[in-house]
Amino acid sequence: MRSLEHRQEREQAGQFFVEGIRIVGEAVQMEAEVETIVYAPGLLRSQFAFDLVQAQQEQGVPCLEVTPEVFKSLSAKDGPQGMAAVVKQRWETLERVRLADELCWVALDEVQDPGNIGTILRTSDAVGSAGLILLGNSADPYDPAALRASMGAVFSQRLVKASFAEFVYWKQGYTVIGTSGASPTSYRSVTYPRPAVLLMGSERQGLSQEQRAVCDVVVSIPMVGRSDSLNLAVATGVMLYELFHQSAASTHTKLV
Amino acid sequence: MRSLEHRQEREQAGQFFVEGIRIVGEAVQMEAEVETIVYAPGLLRSQFAFDLVQAQQEQGVPCLEVTPEVFKSLSAKDGPQGMAAVVKQRWETLERVRLADELCWVALDEVQDPGNIGTILRTSDAVGSAGLILLGNSADPYDPAALRASMGAVFSQRLVKASFAEFVYWKQGYTVIGTSGASPTSYRSVTYPRPAVLLMGSERQGLSQEQRAVCDVVVSIPMVGRSDSLNLAVATGVMLYELFHQSAASTHTKLV
Repeated sequence: MRSLEHRQEREQAGQFFVEGIRIVGEAVQMEAEVETIVYAPGLLRSQFAFDLVQAQQEQGVPCLEVTPEVFKSLSAKDGPQGMAAVVKQRWETLERVRLADELCWVALDEVQDPGNIGTILRTSDAVGSAGLILLGNSADPYDPAALRASMGAVFSQRLVKASFAEFVYWKQGYTVIGTSGASPTSYRSVTYPRPAVLLMGSERQGLSQEQRAVCDVVVSIPMVGRSDSLNLAVATGVMLYELFHQSAASTHTKLV
Repeated sequence: MRSLEHRQEREQAGQFFVEGIRIVGEAVQMEAEVETIVYAPGLLRSQFAFDLVQAQQEQGVPCLEVTPEVFKSLSAKDGPQGMAAVVKQRWETLERVRLADELCWVALDEVQDPGNIGTILRTSDAVGSAGLILLGNSADPYDPAALRASMGAVFSQRLVKASFAEFVYWKQGYTVIGTSGASPTSYRSVTYPRPAVLLMGSERQGLSQEQRAVCDVVVSIPMVGRSDSLNLAVATGVMLYELFHQSAASTHTKLV
C-alpha cells in the first residue's frame, strides 16, 4: 500500500490507493474494483463505514483490520479517518472508444500537474463529458493529488492513454476543438457539434502547431489583462461550460 | 528571507518573497515595492537578469550578491535561477474601494487553498476584474503556492481584507452576485450589471444562508454529473467569463 504513492509502482501493480470514508464509499458505489479495504476500528467514527466494511466482506473483498498506529503509518492525512482501499486502475484503449451521445471527450497533451488532471475530471463529470484521453507523457490521474482534486470523478469518468499518432488516426470522423491564444476566433462565436473532442495543450506550451493542424476548429478564450494564458483547469472549465450550454440550449429547442 | 515562508512572519513584516527571474521582473515592471533583491551571479544565465539588477541598484534598491550555495539555501526550487526579491505587501481597506468602470470585484469567503486564490487572481486579471476582497480567515495571497498559481497577477490585482460585517456595510449600492447549487436560476439566464461584485463561498461549504441573503441575485452553475460542486477556481472562472462576455457583448452593441 505504501509503495502505491509512487507512480511506477502504481503502474506495475495496476492499482491505486484511496483514503477516506467518502472516497472508499464512492469507489464501491461506482463499482470500481476494490481489491483490499484496510480499516482501523479504533479510528472509525461512522456507522456508515462499519456497514461498508461488513457489506464488502460479505461480497468477498479482503478487509484488513489494523490498529490505529498501523493505519496512521499508511495514511498521508493529519487526522486519518481509519478507512482506505486499494483499487484497480481502469484504462481503456483509444481504438475501442466510439463517440455516441455524450457531450464530449477531453484530450490532454503532456499535462504536468496531477491536480489539474483531477480538477478537469471533476468538471468533465459535472458537464456530462465522457472522460479523458491522456496523450504523451501526462501526469497520472491516479496520483494522490489528482485523486484529491477529482472528488470522486475518477470513478465515473472513462480514462484512455494514447500517443498523439494514435489520436490522429482515431479522430477521423469526429470534430476536434482546439484552443490557442493566437486564434482570432472567440470560443463563444462558434457552434459546436455534439459529440466533440476538446483538445487542450500542456500548461507551459499550449497546443503545438502540429496539434492545431489536426483540430477542425481552433478557438481562443479572450483575455484583456497582463497574462497571456489561463490556468489549464480553468480554461478547460470555461470551454466545457460553453459546449455544455450550447448543447443544453439546443436540446431545449428540440423539446419546444 | 527564509522566515517569509511562514504566514505569520509575512504578516508581521508586511513583506513576501518571490523567486525567479520572470516574477522579479514582473514585480519591477508592475511597480511593486521591491525592498531587496538577492542574486547569485554564479547561477544567473540571462543578460536580462543582470540588467535588471543594475537598473534596480541605480534606483537605490538594495541588491544583495550571494554565492550559489547561499542562494540555494534560500531557494524552494530544484533548479534555482539565481534571482529572488523581498517585496512589500500591498493591501487596501474596503472603505476606500469605490467601484467605477471595472468589470467586477471578486469577494471570497474563508478560502482555504492558496493555490485557488492564486488561480483566481490569474483569471481575474484575464477578464479585467479589479481584484479580490478576502473575507474572514482566508488563505494568504502572498503564500508561495498562491504566488506560483497567480503567474504575476498578484502584482496587477488589487487586494482587500475585510470582515463579513464590513462587506455588508460596504456593498450597499453595488450589485452582489452569489452562486449556490440550490438556486433555480442558471448563471446564463441573468443579465449582470457592470460593475458587479461576485461573491464566492469557501471550498467546503459554499455560501452560507447569511451570505446568500446579502446577494442581489443568487445563480447556480448547472451540473449533470455525480458531483454536487465544482472546484472553486473553475466555478469562479466560469462565472467571470460569463460576466466578461456579457460586458464585451454590450460594449460591442453600443459601438454599433
